Amino acid sequence: MDFSGVKALAFDVFGTVVDWRSGVIRDGEDLSHKKGLEVDWAAFADEWRGRYAPSIDRVRRGEVPWTNLDALHRASLEELLKEFDIEGLTEEEKDHLNKVWHRLDPWPDSVPGLARLKERYILTPLSNGNVALLTNMAKQTGLPWDLILSAEIVHHYKPDPETYLMVPDLLGLRPEEVMLVAAHSSDLRAAQELGLRTGYVLRPLEWGPGGEAEPADLSFNLVAEDIIELAEKLGM
Amino acid sequence: MDFSGVKALAFDVFGTVVDWRSGVIRDGEDLSHKKGLEVDWAAFADEWRGRYAPSIDRVRRGEVPWTNLDALHRASLEELLKEFDIEGLTEEEKDHLNKVWHRLDPWPDSVPGLARLKERYILTPLSNGNVALLTNMAKQTGLPWDLILSAEIVHHYKPDPETYLMVPDLLGLRPEEVMLVAAHSSDLRAAQELGLRTGYVLRPLEWGPGGEAEPADLSFNLVAEDIIELAEKLGM
Repeated sequence: MDFSGVKALAFDVFGTVVDWRSGVIRDGEDLSHKKGLEVDWAAFADEWRGRYAPSIDRVRRGEVPWTNLDALHRASLEELLKEFDIEGLTEEEKDHLNKVWHRLDPWPDSVPGLARLKERYILTPLSNGNVALLTNMAKQTGLPWDLILSAEIVHHYKPDPETYLMVPDLLGLRPEEVMLVAAHSSDLRAAQELGLRTGYVLRPLEWGPGGEAEPADLSFNLVAEDIIELAEKLGM
Repeated sequence: MDFSGVKALAFDVFGTVVDWRSGVIRDGEDLSHKKGLEVDWAAFADEWRGRYAPSIDRVRRGEVPWTNLDALHRASLEELLKEFDIEGLTEEEKDHLNKVWHRLDPWPDSVPGLARLKERYILTPLSNGNVALLTNMAKQTGLPWDLILSAEIVHHYKPDPETYLMVPDLLGLRPEEVMLVAAHSSDLRAAQELGLRTGYVLRPLEWGPGGEAEPADLSFNLVAEDIIELAEKLGM
């Protein structure tokens, strides 16, 4: 396939660019150490992430008004603290734990791969994470975005069409001049239906050791082991 | 004044960060050379910029629906081509000339000053320029923004309050944690009324040689000769 018409790459973030699971476990264990807690933080991380899609779907269906991801994460966190019998956290400690999603580390290939791609393409996240979350994450870890596009800007969560179409719309491009890069087939299929190009990146470790990457759909325009290979396949 | 609470700096762009007048003149002269035109491009640049505020005000008053700056610039350009008796441009040449606003050069201190400030602050434009314009400009000239905030995101032009309040709102900050940096007093006063901090940068050459900087309001929190001095005054 000829990718010479692609001008901008929009990246899913959680799981695709950053390793949310290790980050939540790491900060959870720091908290356990500080507060003398015994918590299975891997299970906690998986449960927290597991509540993500249902909470977003409630907003998408209009059951609750627009709520950004920090606030959805916080509501899930309150439930999980009860479920895991975690007591005695101050408001400041809860807020800090909730903002672990701002402090996640990129996969090892993400920063060098994006730096290479930045020479030719406009790079943006296209994430359900809120603008502050994505900005703080990039600032802390050196993700070299050209701009930050978030579901928060259009008050629609992926996979609502408004999110994907925001990228060509705000960048003055046609949909086929934008490629969505993601480790999740459902995200890519939603973008594909709207005319965006699709790049699938395998992330078998998203849900921890022993996990498997989602099977790639043969209709995706490009499949890569990681973001460095994505850059290579785009001729960078 | 203590600026330790400031977390983000939002910059006005046209005149404050980039030199729109020289850029329009330069590209206009290139076009004259190519097409054998005789045009006073300095006068053309000033007229084009002169139509900016009135066209934005028509949108602000609701006389026309939301229209981004590329489209407002284009409507003004059509008028000016007639006024300056410029004929024989193809659609492609008109589009290219209109997009000169994406290709403006920063003042010499802008990129090094911003690079210094980026070590401590979140840096964003806060401009009436559309997202594509601001993104292309940054990409071409190396303006090291962390994100791109534009009037286009909220469909309100400065000085509507929605534009200034977008910055703390999307960054999860309080208004006093954001400083607007601009070379225009009216812009700064509008931000100040909403609780943002204000940094005034002198740009006597905005309207060409022999121009004068606007007089600084004594109520502005900081006044600097340029963006490098702004960084120094913020202790960077």
